[in-house]
Amino acid sequence: MNIDMIHAAAARLRGHVVETPLLFSPGIDAIAGRRVFVKAEAVQVTGSFKARGGWSAISALPPEIRARGVIAFSSGNHAQGVARAAASFDIPAVIIMPSDAPRAKIEGTRALGAEVVLYDRVQESREEIGETLARDRGLTLIRPYDEPQVIAGQGTTGLEIARQAAAFGITDGEVLVCCGGGGLTSGIALALEAEAPSMRVRPVEPQGFDDVARSLASGRIERNAAATGSICDAVLTPAPGEITFPIMHRLCGPGLAVTDAEARRAVAAAARHLNLVVEPGGAIALAAALYHGDRIAGDHVIVTASGGNIDKSLLIDILMEET
Amino acid sequence: MNIDMIHAAAARLRGHVVETPLLFSPGIDAIAGRRVFVKAEAVQVTGSFKARGGWSAISALPPEIRARGVIAFSSGNHAQGVARAAASFDIPAVIIMPSDAPRAKIEGTRALGAEVVLYDRVQESREEIGETLARDRGLTLIRPYDEPQVIAGQGTTGLEIARQAAAFGITDGEVLVCCGGGGLTSGIALALEAEAPSMRVRPVEPQGFDDVARSLASGRIERNAAATGSICDAVLTPAPGEITFPIMHRLCGPGLAVTDAEARRAVAAAARHLNLVVEPGGAIALAAALYHGDRIAGDHVIVTASGGNIDKSLLIDILMEET
Repeated sequence: MNIDMIHAAAARLRGHVVETPLLFSPGIDAIAGRRVFVKAEAVQVTGSFKARGGWSAISALPPEIRARGVIAFSSGNHAQGVARAAASFDIPAVIIMPSDAPRAKIEGTRALGAEVVLYDRVQESREEIGETLARDRGLTLIRPYDEPQVIAGQGTTGLEIARQAAAFGITDGEVLVCCGGGGLTSGIALALEAEAPSMRVRPVEPQGFDDVARSLASGRIERNAAATGSICDAVLTPAPGEITFPIMHRLCGPGLAVTDAEARRAVAAAARHLNLVVEPGGAIALAAALYHGDRIAGDHVIVTASGGNIDKSLLIDILMEET
Repeated sequence: MNIDMIHAAAARLRGHVVETPLLFSPGIDAIAGRRVFVKAEAVQVTGSFKARGGWSAISALPPEIRARGVIAFSSGNHAQGVARAAASFDIPAVIIMPSDAPRAKIEGTRALGAEVVLYDRVQESREEIGETLARDRGLTLIRPYDEPQVIAGQGTTGLEIARQAAAFGITDGEVLVCCGGGGLTSGIALALEAEAPSMRVRPVEPQGFDDVARSLASGRIERNAAATGSICDAVLTPAPGEITFPIMHRLCGPGLAVTDAEARRAVAAAARHLNLVVEPGGAIALAAALYHGDRIAGDHVIVTASGGNIDKSLLIDILMEET
């Protein structure tokens, strides 16, 4: 893993994904008490940054391997990123998704032409199912985060952050990243190490699922006690990855954690002040900026709004409860 | 009015407004039956493209004139664009708004520190109120569209469209623009004339308020019969401007019109497929692409999603009615 892989991924992605904007709003700044810049991956094609990693990994495969098809396991955003890239390359895609994934994500993945296989998040291992299917059908497994070309793809977000922040005169400060297995976090950290070394990446997780924060504190990979129990489905991975953790340990931290209630309020704030639909797991970095400002240093902060694939009923519910 | 003014405005705007993305979505393409690219000005600071024109006009004023303050009349988006620029330059802003403007827009304008004066959209002339106040207090009137520096600011949207579309290999085709008085439409048309001359701009208006389409057809300025009666409040201007019309007559057309019901469906589609909150008047170009495809030429189309300042209650209402 190095910065050259991220630049190479950026070249492959050009013209195939959206260069998402770095947003800001006086209303958001007023709540946070500092300037907040929001990297809006919720408007990325497929509704999350996972379109980058999916495209990066599939475009990097040798053509004869790629032609046999790909397989992925995902709570939904990686699913859509891989399915969309596979559809563009006109190759088969099998996606293994938890049966309790948001309907918007399951339907979105099917609409992109993928074959969806549902599994039980608590009783079954998605890794085992994926590896068996991959072997039987000759499919290439595209891991959601512990895969160098996926990390390189997510890292292109960091290249854009460095360039876009510089246009606002920002070259330092904290960068809060919504963190599951650490693909986006480690990718952005590698990109910023090269392009904006005075910025520091801090992972943000849901309370009770702060495996990355605890791993960074202890210096070794720690696991979450539970697999479910937060509305932030996009970031409920069991532990940081074997590849992502050493990168995060070298470059990131300390971690932050927010409650589901704070994530909901951040979803409402993004809709109101940024005109952005963000899902709870994609709103936790904004939630940390808005409601945990005392744990952040500096007069400005950059956050990722990593995805927006929220069920419509939950979005309506959150908009209605906002006072 | 020329392309040099637009480039000069772009230089003044750099670092002060958002370079908004050109979005796309397989789900949107499937409804439209062609590739659709969406210039997402709904995520512009202040929630609409009007932040560009407001900044352009105020930043172009001589400092000693600017220091006395500015005044604007607006249904809400120009109001916020001018108020925000005035706040950044630390000068007074008086905004004359119709009393039936969306609450989100009135509150948003006040939150930006402007003094808001409400008027009756049917019985009073906002131009007369504005000119009187401007004279009495020494304020500079920033017209919403019939003002060269405002058009130049809105035209920077067109510079970005040309550059971003080229990254997707798109250098020709129709560009549908949500059209009120014609500031955005004429600005984009001037920018594309220079930067992407094979693109053609077509204004989109609400049915019954298609003054620009009728003016383009007749060759002279036509007025709307009514001042109210559509949910597309952002684009209910009485007639094209004295400056904007000749530009549109030379470069744009023919116009398109959509119903309020189509605008509502486009708002729902933008939220679902693009994770973008768009207001009805900012969704009419997308509505034309989605529901009037037979009147559009080519295998791709570019549309503006010009603003997103919608009352939360209306957004919830629209999201709930989508089937």
